[in-house]
Amino acid sequence: MTDTTAAQSASAPSHPLVAKHETVLKEAAQALADRSWFSRYPESPSPRVYGESAAAEGKDAFEGRLAGDFTDLADQPTDGTWVGSEVSPYGPELRVRYPHLDIDAGLAAAKAALPAWRDAGARTRAAVCVEMIDRINEHSFELANAVMHTTGQPFVMAFQAAGPNAQDRALEAVVAALVEQERVPASVVWERPTKREPIRMQKDYRIVPRGLGLMIGCNTFPTWNGYPGLFASLATGNPVVVKPHPRATLPLAITVAVMRSVLEEAGFDKALVQLAAEDDGEGLAKELALRPEVALIDYTGGPGFGGWLEREAAAHGKQVYTEKAGVNTVVVDSTDSLKGLLGNLAFSFSLYSGQMCTAPQNVYVPRDGVDTDQGHLSFEEFGQQLAGAVTAFNADDAKAVEVLGATVNDDVRSRATDLPGLASRLGGEVVLDTRKVTHPAYPDAVVRVPGLVSVDVGNDTAYTQECFGPVSFLIATDSTGQSLERLRDTIREHGAMTASVYSTSEQVLDDAREAAAEAGVALSENLTGQIFVNQTAAFSDYHGTGANPAANSAYVDAAFVANRFRVITSRRHV
Amino acid sequence: MTDTTAAQSASAPSHPLVAKHETVLKEAAQALADRSWFSRYPESPSPRVYGESAAAEGKDAFEGRLAGDFTDLADQPTDGTWVGSEVSPYGPELRVRYPHLDIDAGLAAAKAALPAWRDAGARTRAAVCVEMIDRINEHSFELANAVMHTTGQPFVMAFQAAGPNAQDRALEAVVAALVEQERVPASVVWERPTKREPIRMQKDYRIVPRGLGLMIGCNTFPTWNGYPGLFASLATGNPVVVKPHPRATLPLAITVAVMRSVLEEAGFDKALVQLAAEDDGEGLAKELALRPEVALIDYTGGPGFGGWLEREAAAHGKQVYTEKAGVNTVVVDSTDSLKGLLGNLAFSFSLYSGQMCTAPQNVYVPRDGVDTDQGHLSFEEFGQQLAGAVTAFNADDAKAVEVLGATVNDDVRSRATDLPGLASRLGGEVVLDTRKVTHPAYPDAVVRVPGLVSVDVGNDTAYTQECFGPVSFLIATDSTGQSLERLRDTIREHGAMTASVYSTSEQVLDDAREAAAEAGVALSENLTGQIFVNQTAAFSDYHGTGANPAANSAYVDAAFVANRFRVITSRRHV
Repeated sequence: MTDTTAAQSASAPSHPLVAKHETVLKEAAQALADRSWFSRYPESPSPRVYGESAAAEGKDAFEGRLAGDFTDLADQPTDGTWVGSEVSPYGPELRVRYPHLDIDAGLAAAKAALPAWRDAGARTRAAVCVEMIDRINEHSFELANAVMHTTGQPFVMAFQAAGPNAQDRALEAVVAALVEQERVPASVVWERPTKREPIRMQKDYRIVPRGLGLMIGCNTFPTWNGYPGLFASLATGNPVVVKPHPRATLPLAITVAVMRSVLEEAGFDKALVQLAAEDDGEGLAKELALRPEVALIDYTGGPGFGGWLEREAAAHGKQVYTEKAGVNTVVVDSTDSLKGLLGNLAFSFSLYSGQMCTAPQNVYVPRDGVDTDQGHLSFEEFGQQLAGAVTAFNADDAKAVEVLGATVNDDVRSRATDLPGLASRLGGEVVLDTRKVTHPAYPDAVVRVPGLVSVDVGNDTAYTQECFGPVSFLIATDSTGQSLERLRDTIREHGAMTASVYSTSEQVLDDAREAAAEAGVALSENLTGQIFVNQTAAFSDYHGTGANPAANSAYVDAAFVANRFRVITSRRHV
Repeated sequence: MTDTTAAQSASAPSHPLVAKHETVLKEAAQALADRSWFSRYPESPSPRVYGESAAAEGKDAFEGRLAGDFTDLADQPTDGTWVGSEVSPYGPELRVRYPHLDIDAGLAAAKAALPAWRDAGARTRAAVCVEMIDRINEHSFELANAVMHTTGQPFVMAFQAAGPNAQDRALEAVVAALVEQERVPASVVWERPTKREPIRMQKDYRIVPRGLGLMIGCNTFPTWNGYPGLFASLATGNPVVVKPHPRATLPLAITVAVMRSVLEEAGFDKALVQLAAEDDGEGLAKELALRPEVALIDYTGGPGFGGWLEREAAAHGKQVYTEKAGVNTVVVDSTDSLKGLLGNLAFSFSLYSGQMCTAPQNVYVPRDGVDTDQGHLSFEEFGQQLAGAVTAFNADDAKAVEVLGATVNDDVRSRATDLPGLASRLGGEVVLDTRKVTHPAYPDAVVRVPGLVSVDVGNDTAYTQECFGPVSFLIATDSTGQSLERLRDTIREHGAMTASVYSTSEQVLDDAREAAAEAGVALSENLTGQIFVNQTAAFSDYHGTGANPAANSAYVDAAFVANRFRVITSRRHV
């Protein structure tokens, strides 16, 4: 008989936070295994949920950060300089200054902090991480303001996506990491039968981290896209350096400050999490990525630097997790709810002005039209209906800005403000021009209702690159069969974070699932209600797949966490 | 409430092999989770186990392969040429000719075979793989002869290591892959609560492989080191091309032929497993590694090509699993069983003439000696005792060759046949010269009893590279503390597959565990009986850790299998 002791972390001394967070870890682990609905952090910014004064206090906290030094991180090793040049996409300069990390001293401090964190065990690390996320949750309104004014997200979205939704994704990463580590028993007495007495050995299995983690944040979703890698690395024992995007530093600075407070209170070294803020153009990500201490790199952002990491950092033996860009795809074949389809797509295009990595871009429609519950529509009629739905959805400027947000950078603005020029260069026709919206509170913000350009399927140079922002393509195909072929082939080659299909035919839906499997992309079918292709639910929906060029990994599958630690055995006769 | 359906493979149609192998898959999965003793394939070559005629039939089968065309693989796509230039380390030329794969046609056939294998589901794939391994087991005596005469392993070791032990490692990989895939449910009905009716979606999760696998075999352990990657890739849905070492092709040719037979009988495309044999110097591994169809690469062999794969193939986005070289380490502090220690080490040095990737090389001993149950021994006395143990163990030539085997190549032979020259170049002193042994049956074989060279700890250039073959270093240190520091630092920098320590002090053992954890190497403590540091047990001991430069992965942890597939979701309202 074999005596297997309890899981890995049972051998670690019990930290008070372990008991505190036992229930949530158990429930979340079950949800992750089942891929069922689970959420710890309510996404409603209602006063009934977060308290009457929470919104105002959060706004005050944010405003208190502006035009000053971010002193909460002044205890990091610093070279004495301060950096920061954030400008809100809504107009105002933030004028927050961050201490500039002394890289040598910072990495040395992180390395020195590693052994105690490693030896604390998986369960203690998970509990400390949950405490961090709970405390981050208390800053959700402050973070919502910080994210709004660094990314251009509208306020409610900034609250939900950058707050509770990001926190749930963080918890998912922590739980996935814990489950993965606890799959390895802490110890076993191994008995090998022989002709005489069995040979018995005690084998102890020890989880060790890979080294240091580096999380490179992005401009549009600094927390939602940053937390999974940050917490996956930390929960598996790796100290993490957070290198925020120079134009979206504040949300991660607040995050890191909260995490460091919790570490200190929990009796661990604050150097386990550090912020490496930089000014635009410093190139700190590249420097950090090639440091020998760094073993794990998580990145979300453009394909240029992402590709460099996948080539150069990977060639240096770093484990690299990337999310880059792609051509998100919708195939329209037929529908029994034209109104639902149009409303759902109009929202997906409009939300944050199409500046989500999951926003649909390429809409394939047969050139001889689609059957709907409102009768057959020609390709042109479908385009007009979709344009009408986008227009109607964004008819009221004051309401529209609360969905559209603001354009995040000049690259997006250049496309958004001259759609006829873009369409002409690409050989397409404008079906719906972008419409200028004046933000009632922030007149300097560049806000545009999304536009639509129609192109022929043969003009593939027009639609086979990411066109980030409020522009989508209506692509006329010979048939739904060709639409699905294009879905498969363009995503295999150029990647995608999302795909969706509308059809009343089971055969077409089956074919679409096949095409999606071959393309390596998740598929949403006939979304006509309050679920949108842009959105994925932690614990149930994977974000990305790792199976197409848009991202080499997924939030959060086993592959996302299993490589962040190693197992070291010691064995002896007993 | 959430309705989670049964695990992934439940949705696949039930293949007859699923029921046949249900029990073994269940028992092996439990053993893997517990890391307890498990073995499906008896390692005794006794007639009572494998049958009275098995040994003779296996020898006949092997001899029937010699000096002829390996026609079992003639149905592979071929460019019409035949290759093969194997020469037994025991002397004879094998003169087996293998059909040369037409790479374009072979990879195209593999890709065409993928969808049906993918759609068969994880459990069917696992069952087919178990059937393959069972059938390979029936060829254990034939494989033992083939491995003996390509690697130079002695016969009984060739039987055990290349037969049942390799088969158990293959089963371990299959089971690890199955468990990992079945952690993802096939389907879930997700219910999100709202103020009114909950939102309900059905989500189907589909396992898809990464692409094609490439397994690059090594000269010394073509099956034991080859099977884990081969079966891990195949069990996760990836067709595999096996590129054997040109001097150890026959064992993998037999393996691939058996696997293809089982595939055909089970109703699958034989192109799921193909052999890409080559003549020495063709460079086929490099060509295959860079083919875009290849997504996964498993490699065991020298650090030169292994490093190239880790840099170049990884930079091309391939998932690369390597095992290369290192400086396996023994720290001797003290012992309460000098006789046991000496006997255990003498066997570890002698087995296959130190040509195991796990054989100890660097033995650190304090220069002021060690305490033993036979009294205190000076450094020199300990060296003499160890030399005496190696000499006595190998005193009888006829018995010695059954442990030593034959030297595998000229590189090993050059060191083995001129130890004084080597010691002089390295600045060390010969404690025990290698002794020439004449093999009674194979006079052309180059067989040497291992030698020992003593060096000072300060002469680190002498002992910080792998010295593959029958040579070990006795390294005089200032103290056991320094020995452990050298263990940690040399393994961090140069890697190791194994480490062991001898001490009667709990403190020293604790310190050794700490040093091993920091070095990222598994530790064996006080081995004085019938367990040897060279040997690891499937399902319980990890082979390698992935945490030091000797290998970037381990047989078989979750990280070894989790990245070989992806999950594709399709979701819809219900």
